[in-house]
Amino acid sequence: MKIINDVKFLIVGLGLIGGSYAQALTDLGYEVGAITRTQSSIDYAKENGIIAHGTTEITEDYINKFDVIIFALYPRVLIEWIEKYQAYFKKGALITDVTGVKGPIVYKIQDMLREDVEFVGAHPMAGKEVYGVQNADKSIFKNANYIVTPTDKNTKEAIEATKQIGKILGFKTIAELSPEEHDEMIGFLSQLTHCIAVSLMDCKESEKLVDYTGDSFRDLTRIAKINDAMWSELFLLNKAELLAQMDLFMSKFSELRNALASEDTDKMREMMRISTERRKYFDK
Amino acid sequence: MKIINDVKFLIVGLGLIGGSYAQALTDLGYEVGAITRTQSSIDYAKENGIIAHGTTEITEDYINKFDVIIFALYPRVLIEWIEKYQAYFKKGALITDVTGVKGPIVYKIQDMLREDVEFVGAHPMAGKEVYGVQNADKSIFKNANYIVTPTDKNTKEAIEATKQIGKILGFKTIAELSPEEHDEMIGFLSQLTHCIAVSLMDCKESEKLVDYTGDSFRDLTRIAKINDAMWSELFLLNKAELLAQMDLFMSKFSELRNALASEDTDKMREMMRISTERRKYFDK
Repeated sequence: MKIINDVKFLIVGLGLIGGSYAQALTDLGYEVGAITRTQSSIDYAKENGIIAHGTTEITEDYINKFDVIIFALYPRVLIEWIEKYQAYFKKGALITDVTGVKGPIVYKIQDMLREDVEFVGAHPMAGKEVYGVQNADKSIFKNANYIVTPTDKNTKEAIEATKQIGKILGFKTIAELSPEEHDEMIGFLSQLTHCIAVSLMDCKESEKLVDYTGDSFRDLTRIAKINDAMWSELFLLNKAELLAQMDLFMSKFSELRNALASEDTDKMREMMRISTERRKYFDK
Repeated sequence: MKIINDVKFLIVGLGLIGGSYAQALTDLGYEVGAITRTQSSIDYAKENGIIAHGTTEITEDYINKFDVIIFALYPRVLIEWIEKYQAYFKKGALITDVTGVKGPIVYKIQDMLREDVEFVGAHPMAGKEVYGVQNADKSIFKNANYIVTPTDKNTKEAIEATKQIGKILGFKTIAELSPEEHDEMIGFLSQLTHCIAVSLMDCKESEKLVDYTGDSFRDLTRIAKINDAMWSELFLLNKAELLAQMDLFMSKFSELRNALASEDTDKMREMMRISTERRKYFDK
């Protein structure tokens, strides 16, 4: 499949990410429909030109119009949804998602999926600390990465089409990783950082600290404002990998702690020189 | 003492902070002199209108001209300097500093100081990830906090004058804490966050991670670019307090880790709800 002008997109789950996908695709001239749980989200999206049409009802009649179906649901709901309603998909449809963990999602879906449709996993590494289609904002893709996680079951054509979706959405970089590589990377770069921010913010009451807080503490805790339902689900799905990354961090942190406890200045300074050197790669 | 127009300021240590102090005070019309180790820093500061005059020689002749002496040296050097040259201070001079740890500095200096001069500790919570007078930039004070840490030995007048220096430098807030309160607060908000950033950055080689790195990891490691000589000295000076803060963080982080390991979703979500709630106070 090629993503050409008359391809019709269905967004399932019209929240912040689903809504931002819909907005970007509609603005490009595509026909975008939506299925979501609450009528008010459909109404808002229609009134604001984010979708052409949408429904809270899951029917074959509506679903089999669409060439590409993008799932922007919580992970567990996603699996159940596809299990229950995959019979309604149009023959030849391309199915993709936005889930932040890939291994436990991609293989499960591919194993149960009909032979005449294809699922390619994707992870748009974009977000905001707000929720809902009311906050949809396609500009969040502009400086973000979009990662496609194909498996042996995927065709070249479907992988290319999925990447093309990332391109037309406006992502800065489009990358390809195996589901396993993805989950290790995301466990370290995203999930571990959220665990650190949450733990740090939980250490003390914050009201009286605000007056003395500089940029360091603000930067380290920005992502401590977190959707607890979604992130706890993502953490559990990536449990083994995230535990490994947490333990790695804890061992490094303990090294520094013990160097301080034993007044080992050389060791502390060596750890600081390494971090200074490595951080240079990240200067934008 | 009141900080009036004909007060003469001496900056000892013309680095980033000393240079930025000098720039701000000179721009306000004060006569600012400097003592620092390298002639090139003096030359640069004179050529760029940051100071009126300066020298690498430590002489009574030069030093006893000044009403206010601001020390912007590394902590250990600061103590030695005052011990060795305090005889040169002008009678009635106000002495202050910029050191990031107060307890071990303030009392030591006050205990050995001449009776006819006064030392009031101060901590400008401002900085940059670059060094030297060449990077002097008084705008770093604009959104920053300035904390004065007086003791029983200080007079009201000297405390007020030290606060006034913070005001004329352009700091956003001027606060007063005891040296002990300061060190606990700074151990948590600043030193602990630097320990976290350094440890996180040290976990993995970063070259191949750059392509997938979003804002979360960038935010959490910005301060991993660190002056290892200065920060290791500050950590050691605040050792007991910083170890307590590191242990507090580790215990919270372990709580979250163990909740994940035992798949205790309620506990994970509770920790996330607390962090979300507390982070709200910090929204600028």
